[in-house]
Amino acid sequence: MEVLELIKKAIFEGKTSLNEAESKQVLHHYGVPVVEEFVVTDSEKAVAQAEKVGFPVVLKGLGARLTHKTERGLVRLNLKDAQEVHQAAAQIAEAAGNDLEGFIVQPMLSGTREFVAGLFRDDQFGPVVMFGLGGILTEALDDVVFRIAPLDEAHANAMMDELRAAPLLGTFRGEKPVHRDQMVRVLMGLSRLGMEHSKIREIDVNPLLVGRDGDVTAVDALVVLGAGTAKQMMRPPVDPKAIYHLFHPRSIAFVGASAAFTKWGYVLFTNVAAGKYEGNMYLVNPKGGQIAGRPVFKSVTDIPAPVDLAVVSVPVGKVMELMPQFKEKGVRSVLLVTSGFSETGEEGRLLEQKLAEEARASGILILGPNTMGICNPHVNLFCTYQHVRPTPGATTLISQSGNLGTQLLAFAESEGIGIRAFAGSGNEAMITIEDYLDGIEDDDLTNTLVLYVESIKNGRRFFDSARRIARKKPVIMLKGGRTREGNRAAASHTGAMASNIAVFEAACRQAGIVLGKTSMELLDLSAAFSSLPLPAGNRVAVMTLGGGWGVVTADLCIEYGLTVPPLPPEIIEKIDKILPPYWSRSNPVDLVAEMDLSVPMTLSEVLMAWEGCDALLHLGILGRQFFVRRMIESAFTVDPNCDHQFLEKIPDYLAEFNSKYTEHVVRLMEKYGKPVLGVSLLADGDSHTVTNVEGTPFKGIAFPAPERAVSALAAMYSYKRWLDMEGI
Amino acid sequence: MEVLELIKKAIFEGKTSLNEAESKQVLHHYGVPVVEEFVVTDSEKAVAQAEKVGFPVVLKGLGARLTHKTERGLVRLNLKDAQEVHQAAAQIAEAAGNDLEGFIVQPMLSGTREFVAGLFRDDQFGPVVMFGLGGILTEALDDVVFRIAPLDEAHANAMMDELRAAPLLGTFRGEKPVHRDQMVRVLMGLSRLGMEHSKIREIDVNPLLVGRDGDVTAVDALVVLGAGTAKQMMRPPVDPKAIYHLFHPRSIAFVGASAAFTKWGYVLFTNVAAGKYEGNMYLVNPKGGQIAGRPVFKSVTDIPAPVDLAVVSVPVGKVMELMPQFKEKGVRSVLLVTSGFSETGEEGRLLEQKLAEEARASGILILGPNTMGICNPHVNLFCTYQHVRPTPGATTLISQSGNLGTQLLAFAESEGIGIRAFAGSGNEAMITIEDYLDGIEDDDLTNTLVLYVESIKNGRRFFDSARRIARKKPVIMLKGGRTREGNRAAASHTGAMASNIAVFEAACRQAGIVLGKTSMELLDLSAAFSSLPLPAGNRVAVMTLGGGWGVVTADLCIEYGLTVPPLPPEIIEKIDKILPPYWSRSNPVDLVAEMDLSVPMTLSEVLMAWEGCDALLHLGILGRQFFVRRMIESAFTVDPNCDHQFLEKIPDYLAEFNSKYTEHVVRLMEKYGKPVLGVSLLADGDSHTVTNVEGTPFKGIAFPAPERAVSALAAMYSYKRWLDMEGI
Repeated sequence: MEVLELIKKAIFEGKTSLNEAESKQVLHHYGVPVVEEFVVTDSEKAVAQAEKVGFPVVLKGLGARLTHKTERGLVRLNLKDAQEVHQAAAQIAEAAGNDLEGFIVQPMLSGTREFVAGLFRDDQFGPVVMFGLGGILTEALDDVVFRIAPLDEAHANAMMDELRAAPLLGTFRGEKPVHRDQMVRVLMGLSRLGMEHSKIREIDVNPLLVGRDGDVTAVDALVVLGAGTAKQMMRPPVDPKAIYHLFHPRSIAFVGASAAFTKWGYVLFTNVAAGKYEGNMYLVNPKGGQIAGRPVFKSVTDIPAPVDLAVVSVPVGKVMELMPQFKEKGVRSVLLVTSGFSETGEEGRLLEQKLAEEARASGILILGPNTMGICNPHVNLFCTYQHVRPTPGATTLISQSGNLGTQLLAFAESEGIGIRAFAGSGNEAMITIEDYLDGIEDDDLTNTLVLYVESIKNGRRFFDSARRIARKKPVIMLKGGRTREGNRAAASHTGAMASNIAVFEAACRQAGIVLGKTSMELLDLSAAFSSLPLPAGNRVAVMTLGGGWGVVTADLCIEYGLTVPPLPPEIIEKIDKILPPYWSRSNPVDLVAEMDLSVPMTLSEVLMAWEGCDALLHLGILGRQFFVRRMIESAFTVDPNCDHQFLEKIPDYLAEFNSKYTEHVVRLMEKYGKPVLGVSLLADGDSHTVTNVEGTPFKGIAFPAPERAVSALAAMYSYKRWLDMEGI
Repeated sequence: MEVLELIKKAIFEGKTSLNEAESKQVLHHYGVPVVEEFVVTDSEKAVAQAEKVGFPVVLKGLGARLTHKTERGLVRLNLKDAQEVHQAAAQIAEAAGNDLEGFIVQPMLSGTREFVAGLFRDDQFGPVVMFGLGGILTEALDDVVFRIAPLDEAHANAMMDELRAAPLLGTFRGEKPVHRDQMVRVLMGLSRLGMEHSKIREIDVNPLLVGRDGDVTAVDALVVLGAGTAKQMMRPPVDPKAIYHLFHPRSIAFVGASAAFTKWGYVLFTNVAAGKYEGNMYLVNPKGGQIAGRPVFKSVTDIPAPVDLAVVSVPVGKVMELMPQFKEKGVRSVLLVTSGFSETGEEGRLLEQKLAEEARASGILILGPNTMGICNPHVNLFCTYQHVRPTPGATTLISQSGNLGTQLLAFAESEGIGIRAFAGSGNEAMITIEDYLDGIEDDDLTNTLVLYVESIKNGRRFFDSARRIARKKPVIMLKGGRTREGNRAAASHTGAMASNIAVFEAACRQAGIVLGKTSMELLDLSAAFSSLPLPAGNRVAVMTLGGGWGVVTADLCIEYGLTVPPLPPEIIEKIDKILPPYWSRSNPVDLVAEMDLSVPMTLSEVLMAWEGCDALLHLGILGRQFFVRRMIESAFTVDPNCDHQFLEKIPDYLAEFNSKYTEHVVRLMEKYGKPVLGVSLLADGDSHTVTNVEGTPFKGIAFPAPERAVSALAAMYSYKRWLDMEGI
């Protein structure tokens, strides 16, 4: 095949890149529109060719070693006659010296819109396609987007839309919109080159010109040869069943059990026991005796019953010698909290590696070392250092920081966000983030996966797994180490390797991962994603008790890329029958301090039934308890004549309304297949973000502030668009 | 004076703009470097002039009615010889027709960096200077910044730094950095023109070229004549003393008092009474009788003692007739909660206007109508519909949405943020946001002012007042209606007028106003600004219990424009003596799960004493109560042998440590003059954001999540830079 031959020949000749003409030949072969051009050997032939092409022309020096041609004066634009071509050829020849292999003659193309496109090999993700704004502002504006190859049409199109300078691709100053199909061909051609030719290390198309007629043309191109420097760690993948067993042990031995209040060997056991774990629990310590009124076995092998999971907190020097005992006992999984392994340096790294090999050989799965623990509320298993016990639910949380993970669990507990399972992944000696992804893919109890990730072992595997899973359920992630400083901190924390952050984030978005910006946002996203149907579009109806909240919420919607469409006459007509005559007749719909509790019930259905809306936000309907309770207290304090009996009933009445209303909107979600997000504007902190409603897959959601609801809804809409792009 | 003559002459001749040559003459007179150019009358003279200037040249058609010259083919660049000039002149003459007054010959300047600058008159703020990226990307990238005139050097410089394309102004592709002094001259020249010539409506300098040598040249310019369309409302300013009296009444009459639980006439009175207001309270209702065991007067005039403040909740039709009684009684202020005025349409607007005139004539100050009320915790005055009673403090909150305002107060109450005073400003019949600004300027009890604003009556007054006050104390603001949709909602809510949002926000930033993005952020900012010293710079030391939190916090710092500098050897040496040998030796400093409570005490002082840091963030030191309490509970539940006596003491011990630690960091703030922000990672909600420490102007601050601390610190740093820019 022609392209392969060209590459082989160049490599055989010891060249590190193809020359410009060869580069364009390769691109042309892969469907990239390239400028018409003619290779000539000398100045006379250049003139003759220029006359055929028609003035003005471009003349370039040709040679595999000729790089940075513009800077070296080897590109001469807009040559208007034979004399100018002659002169230019002489100057190029002088500047290029011995590296000159000939000249390229091209027509001078008209068009003011310059882009760049390219391909390179990332250490973690392999071939990556790049697209960006070109011309003189390239470096100043740094407006580029990336996609992991292979690229499909939908993602190639999305690359164009994601540029800040995307307006340039539309009708622009009298120039026609870009022919998007041509641009797609360029990007997909680059992608295919990256996938099919491992000896192409890099391709640089610059400029990629969009002409006045919208035609796309690669005006200059360079194909660099050589292999990439892959730094993916190749680990044997963990069997998803083994991960399932880790979270569903029938019995647990606490090896390194202790009676001291702050020791891991005490804290983990007391958490599991107090959490009402129903399997058998055994304490193991060579010293024997009793702890917490229970017998202590000197070795796991002394335990007179099977042991599924060993929770190990012995000192680092004692871990290895346990392995034969575990093997003998038939222990399937080890939760290794002990620290002092790879996080401390080379010696620890080697010990950890040896341990993992030993475990693999014995058919044992180790979580850790250096983990904060796991939990699975569905079997009442709470085995973390921090005593946190969230309710059973559908969100699985995997965190490369145990501290951050357990703290999030504590918030999840207090906000009513149900948890399927949690693991602090520790040093990941055997189970990596990639393994968890694969392990959770077919777990029916998980409907939302939340990750805190500082680094990944194998980018390509991560990307493939995440994308496969994201097609089935949302994957929400916070990346720690998005900045140089954060990465430095991560390196000292989990030994994270520096990676190209822009490529990493592009890979995540391409894989459909929902990227959170802050730790707390992860919880909001998991609450929303695990409780609500996805919106089909971005049109939001807002219903508010209090005009100001409607204003700030409308602002937030727009700023997050949602829309707040005006109400059509037929909806206004319906609402006219519900609200007093002076209502605003616009979206947001202000309840104008209407205290009649039936109003929000009726109004919410009118808005949900409106075909012009994809989601409903309601503000201030819930969460009035704080003020009302205070008002009643005040009356009791200062008004001897107040109606005690009546006032005392109000809080219960309001609580009952809240339940009814929440159930009502959940039913509406089922009926109309649109999400409803509440904003409670709570000031008393005694309500949960998530409220369960019996007999429905959906839940009631009420955030304390509008920005949290809007941000979550925007993320859901963005995920929906990704699913559409993937054809799901 | 020459410029004035030019303008007068043009206006006399009925022209709406100056021609290009005149425009540049005006700019030149005001210090703007303009391209050397020569006006000639015909083609022959153009050629002769071009030969003097030296080829290549630019030839342009000249004429006051010739606009959009490039699009009409009236600008011909890069003409290389006499023949090209001839040809160009002929084509220009044909395209311009009768509007042609002559030609301009200019040298063809080299340089690839194009900007635009200009002046226009905003309805609210008057003359505004504009600066932006020019060239073909202008419209596609919309990279422009604004400043209200008059402009000083510091702000002119800041305009350059604020462009996204600011890198273009530095060394760029072998071209020299822009001569900033020249650019400052351009911007200040435009500003002076705007201030000195009210007949200049608009100036457009495009392109403003930055040459290879960094020189700035106005290549084309247009001065448009005419007056602006000012839409500022001119209201007589309210005497600050009158506003003081409004918040400090010695006695209150509730006019429209009611015994019905949900009526304003009951709710406001019971709130004030239950809040332990110490002045005299009188109930007024024509029906007389008794309410809440108190006598009801039939009219204020029946009250046998002076009345300072009348709180009025009678129906809209009954308000006007009260005014003579108030005047007779010597009532100073009226809190008018009644609605049905300007927010309902033209009729209400006229009534409101008449009421204000009447009040003004009677020397009475009206707050409202349509207000949610006021509070002043310093005199136990809590007169809002929502029964909220924050602690006395230094933050004054003025809100154009009563609902949003009182909800924020409730959060302030629960987070321990002290409040100086609050007002829901209602329809602002008499007291506008501008009046509150002036009223609070010299209020010693206010150290931080927080505003929720949907619209202002007089932009120029608002700008001047805000800037004057921001030099003394921080002004924090959320603008409702930042988007078209938000503005639409605001219009139906408070009758906000659409304004140019970009100009409004630029004016706020220029005035030193700290702009919040969400309602909740206002509270965080007010907590931080009212409790901490300002940071001198942006270098942050981070101390964390838990590596992951350090990573995400470092990321956040960078993303918010702060830095996390590496530790110098002398600091590392000091910390070596405090932390175990395996500590990370980097910033963030990870306490590596060190449980010894003396460690954070010592470490925080080492970091505060470090000259390389301007602020300290500590994470996870406070807020461990939740987990520890749970651990103790677990031990009690499952361990019959646990040391009850010892465990029971732990929560108190921890609470004591928290107090000590908070006092310790507050003392460090006093000693080193740097802010300390805590992140408690609290999950139990029983701690406050703000903790008072006796005998110091500063307070302990602990946010539940790092993003809130980092965002607040970044805002403080940004305010500090503004103060520096203002020379304070």
